[in-house]
Amino acid sequence: MSNHVYKSLELTGSSKTSIEDAVQTAIAKAHETVRNIQWFTVTETRGHVVDGKVAHWQVTVKIGFTLE
Amino acid sequence: MSNHVYKSLELTGSSKTSIEDAVQTAIAKAHETVRNIQWFTVTETRGHVVDGKVAHWQVTVKIGFTLE
Amino acid sequence: MSNHVYKSLELTGSSKTSIEDAVQTAIAKAHETVRNIQWFTVTETRGHVVDGKVAHWQVTVKIGFTLE
Amino acid sequence: MSNHVYKSLELTGSSKTSIEDAVQTAIAKAHETVRNIQWFTVTETRGHVVDGKVAHWQVTVKIGFTLE
Amino acid sequence: MSNHVYKSLELTGSSKTSIEDAVQTAIAKAHETVRNIQWFTVTETRGHVVDGKVAHWQVTVKIGFTLE
Amino acid sequence: MSNHVYKSLELTGSSKTSIEDAVQTAIAKAHETVRNIQWFTVTETRGHVVDGKVAHWQVTVKIGFTLE
Amino acid sequence: MSNHVYKSLELTGSSKTSIEDAVQTAIAKAHETVRNIQWFTVTETRGHVVDGKVAHWQVTVKIGFTLE
Amino acid sequence: MSNHVYKSLELTGSSKTSIEDAVQTAIAKAHETVRNIQWFTVTETRGHVVDGKVAHWQVTVKIGFTLE
Amino acid sequence: MSNHVYKSLELTGSSKTSIEDAVQTAIAKAHETVRNIQWFTVTETRGHVVDGKVAHWQVTVKIGFTLE
Amino acid sequence: MSNHVYKSLELTGSSKTSIEDAVQTAIAKAHETVRNIQWFTVTETRGHVVDGKVAHWQVTVKIGFTLE
Amino acid sequence: MSNHVYKSLELTGSSKTSIEDAVQTAIAKAHETVRNIQWFTVTETRGHVVDGKVAHWQVTVKIGFTLE
Amino acid sequence: MSNHVYKSLELTGSSKTSIEDAVQTAIAKAHETVRNIQWFTVTETRGHVVDGKVAHWQVTVKIGFTLE
Repeated sequence: MSNHVYKSLELTGSSKTSIEDAVQTAIAKAHETVRNIQWFTVTETRGHVVDGKVAHWQVTVKIGFTLE
Repeated sequence: MSNHVYKSLELTGSSKTSIEDAVQTAIAKAHETVRNIQWFTVTETRGHVVDGKVAHWQVTVKIGFTLE
Repeated sequence: MSNHVYKSLELTGSSKTSIEDAVQTAIAKAHETVRNIQWFTVTETRGHVVDGKVAHWQVTVKIGFTLE
Repeated sequence: MSNHVYKSLELTGSSKTSIEDAVQTAIAKAHETVRNIQWFTVTETRGHVVDGKVAHWQVTVKIGFTLE
Repeated sequence: MSNHVYKSLELTGSSKTSIEDAVQTAIAKAHETVRNIQWFTVTETRGHVVDGKVAHWQVTVKIGFTLE
Repeated sequence: MSNHVYKSLELTGSSKTSIEDAVQTAIAKAHETVRNIQWFTVTETRGHVVDGKVAHWQVTVKIGFTLE
Repeated sequence: MSNHVYKSLELTGSSKTSIEDAVQTAIAKAHETVRNIQWFTVTETRGHVVDGKVAHWQVTVKIGFTLE
Repeated sequence: MSNHVYKSLELTGSSKTSIEDAVQTAIAKAHETVRNIQWFTVTETRGHVVDGKVAHWQVTVKIGFTLE
Repeated sequence: MSNHVYKSLELTGSSKTSIEDAVQTAIAKAHETVRNIQWFTVTETRGHVVDGKVAHWQVTVKIGFTLE
Repeated sequence: MSNHVYKSLELTGSSKTSIEDAVQTAIAKAHETVRNIQWFTVTETRGHVVDGKVAHWQVTVKIGFTLE
Repeated sequence: MSNHVYKSLELTGSSKTSIEDAVQTAIAKAHETVRNIQWFTVTETRGHVVDGKVAHWQVTVKIGFTLE
Repeated sequence: MSNHVYKSLELTGSSKTSIEDAVQTAIAKAHETVRNIQWFTVTETRGHVVDGKVAHWQVTVKIGFTLE
């Protein structure tokens, strides 16, 4: 109960629309296989450009979850 | 007039909707007690996750204002 | 064909509405004079405050493009 | 209830005995004037040396608390 | 035999008593599923505060082990 | 007597003449309201340019003082 | 199809001959169990010394691959 | 009018006399070909030594200007 | 004669064979249009992977040259 | 009397028991050959693991002393 | 002639008057025992404060010299 | 036997041919006067350019050795 241990994974989510959506994409993917996700931290925000416009936002997050 | 001095505070705003809204929340709170806020810099973007979705965006900003 | 060289520029775009729009503003400006923009990385997010509200988002990006 | 704002202060606590005690000294001092302290992060660990022995541990912490 | 490959995981251990105990908690948890742990590096030291006292030390470590 | 606690503030001083003068401006301002200032660390040196000349040096310092 | 998610692992490869070979050793090991490796970034270059000569190059890389 | 874009260049100025003079040398050089320089940030301060004395101060600055 | 000014560019060279060759590729490209290149600093080493092997080394360098 | 010069050395002390003891081990070793040690700063905390337990704490410190 | 090796020392010089004078103090001290000093880099600028005024500038430099 | 202390030196080796050779040059030089060198870490990779080609690779390493 008391001495929890957390593990963190680093994922990069992409989105055509926004930074927030790219983060949500990464977390949703992690949620498919990992239970108990608690928090994330953004570590890099970048993207691809096509014809002078942002085609994809690519946001890297550290995702932390409780180990059971 | 000439030799201004600026002070900076570090606050973390939270929001259920977006990074921009979390920043605005922090600045609005500082505005209650501090006059002459001039600028901010984002120093960390993180958040809480519930059931595989972002529940709160938590954005830390340094907020700079003129000392009178 | 094989040994490409990329150059990166550092620009700061501003926007009254969002971080994403400030990035797009910077890339659109670079696109006026540079061909083959491929990617960007956000290196700083800051802004101006007027009357306790964010007046402008100012986002600095490194923009990478292929040298021909 | 929903959109909390946190403020962080930077203090340096000192102790003749341990790193943990220096942190606790800083937090106890902050607790005299600040309510609702939630967390801390260690940002620097240093100390003074006298006659080849550690005389004081000096640990700098960021201390975060809820603004009401 | 010669060209080893090491993998590193990032875990956060918690403890009510000390930084060293929080590190040991994280390593013991990793040891349940990973063989051949060789080293660790502390990457962040933080904690929770309740009533002006450190309630939990939370120490993040990179843990390195040999891949077989 | 033994277990001192220090607090640090972040100020930015400006000056038309030199980096040293900008630092002194910031410390003098802090001295108006804070007793027992002990040390400072320069964390950023920047400035404004008008007509191709430095109009103001803007130097950010962390200023440390003893809490009584 | 559009919103890819990438995961990154951190491995350290070693080699008696060169930095490039140490990187290739790490990637080859990851390739045994992970499909779709796309890129790597070198995060640390170090090594062991025996009798005043480099005995092993040890290069740490973040390796990124597409999650399916 | 509203959505400005700024570009930054990195120059290193040198001077036999002072850090401030080296910065001014770099800005004056940029001013020969670039209009609308607004600000600079010092990113590195170094120098050459001859016979145990500083022969040249070499200060690297990022120089920001408005793109028209 | 005395107060030189240096400018730095950031390029990324690629190579199928080695880190050194990728650096040389970037410098040779810069040399086509810039005279008086004096030095470079490696700021990032990364690469593309195909079928578990390094397909391209991509090395980013800051290249410094004298402004005349 | 007035214009002191300090030199700093980087040492790594090890200990089977605690971070504090590893720091003290490094300082005691420096004290054998260096007079006037004044301060230290912790720059890295790591350790060796044997059988899922911390076998040695290895703490790197910068040690500063007055040059006479 | 061809394959030089340079060593760097870290010293902190102090001065009552300026940053430049503190750097020169450190280099002059190193020059008493080290030949062939070539360059320095400023790594930290701080100082002591007495009665709301800078009493000493303390500037840390890495000093590089050729090993013979 | 148990509580080792390690010291680290910072050297820069140069080479006309490769990064690896520059590292080896620095270590061989240290080996002339220091026993028990155990490890190194690369902290900077740079070089001189002549006529658009790399004339010298200059690689800075921290070199660690056991104090007896």
